[in-house]
Amino acid sequence: MEDKVILLNFWPSMFGMRTMIALEEKGVKYEYREEDVVKNKSPLLLEMNPIYKKIPVLIHNGKPVCESIIQVQYIDEVWSDKNQLLPSDPYHRAQALFWADFIEKKVFVCGRKTWATKGEELEEAKKEFTEILKTLQSELGDKPYFGGNKFGCMERESVAKSLPDPEKVVGYVLRLKKLYGYE
Amino acid sequence: MEDKVILLNFWPSMFGMRTMIALEEKGVKYEYREEDVVKNKSPLLLEMNPIYKKIPVLIHNGKPVCESIIQVQYIDEVWSDKNQLLPSDPYHRAQALFWADFIEKKVFVCGRKTWATKGEELEEAKKEFTEILKTLQSELGDKPYFGGNKFGCMERESVAKSLPDPEKVVGYVLRLKKLYGYE
Repeated sequence: MEDKVILLNFWPSMFGMRTMIALEEKGVKYEYREEDVVKNKSPLLLEMNPIYKKIPVLIHNGKPVCESIIQVQYIDEVWSDKNQLLPSDPYHRAQALFWADFIEKKVFVCGRKTWATKGEELEEAKKEFTEILKTLQSELGDKPYFGGNKFGCMERESVAKSLPDPEKVVGYVLRLKKLYGYE
Repeated sequence: MEDKVILLNFWPSMFGMRTMIALEEKGVKYEYREEDVVKNKSPLLLEMNPIYKKIPVLIHNGKPVCESIIQVQYIDEVWSDKNQLLPSDPYHRAQALFWADFIEKKVFVCGRKTWATKGEELEEAKKEFTEILKTLQSELGDKPYFGGNKFGCMERESVAKSLPDPEKVVGYVLRLKKLYGYE
């Protein structure tokens, strides 16, 4: 039986992007379905992720896998013959999962704060966001990729030789906010 | 070289409990060090988890592994010869990780709300907490353990044939709150 893979996603999602890069790296053929998460979630999304009702959802032969970090691990295990994403050494694997989780907990939550807040709260969010990006940058150091010289799981977050200047990233987010009329 | 394993913990932590059960199930000898996380974090904790400065931290031959779900995976991989904790089938593994993550995101956050809030907010937290426990209970169904008939990763959360009545759990938390003078 040929594998049937569907990805339910919403294009701006950094979590969906994680899963898409993992599928592309493995050369998995999949059907991409864009979800209207704001106004009209599909019955399939509600059925496949009844707990959170959120994208991305990976559906493999009718069975759902939710949460992007878990999806990346699943994809790495099922299509294990090509382009390993997570290190096989338990310690390096734990480190990769730690930084993926850090991005989930910190970059996403604080990034959202720079969109949703104003005044003093915004100033605080800007500072915090800059610190978070600096932490990631210092972990990356002079290595081309997280974890060493090989493209891997963490590059779902940063497909670049090094991260851009944290101050510039924060400035860019704030310009986007203006551009889209959030200010 | 014999393995040197240290666990930095604070006894009431459900996350620390996860890691302790994993170590015990594997029969790993480890040194338990209680941390005064409220008033006086040890220099070792600050050095080993500089990002979050939180327990539990598992230190294996001098190298730290942080975040309890990642610690359980690490323990399962390093001491793989005994009592497998996570299923080896990728789909069942993804499901186990999903529910462990659900507990992290929901039970902990909402459980804390029942401690920290009063009045209307508390009533809402109680309702939400009850719903979360019901969701877990319906996932467990009539099976003795999450994922089937075998003790596994998810029993870090529930070492019982089935979960207790959700209403009773919420009531118990509220009685504890009173007992410890939080009300």
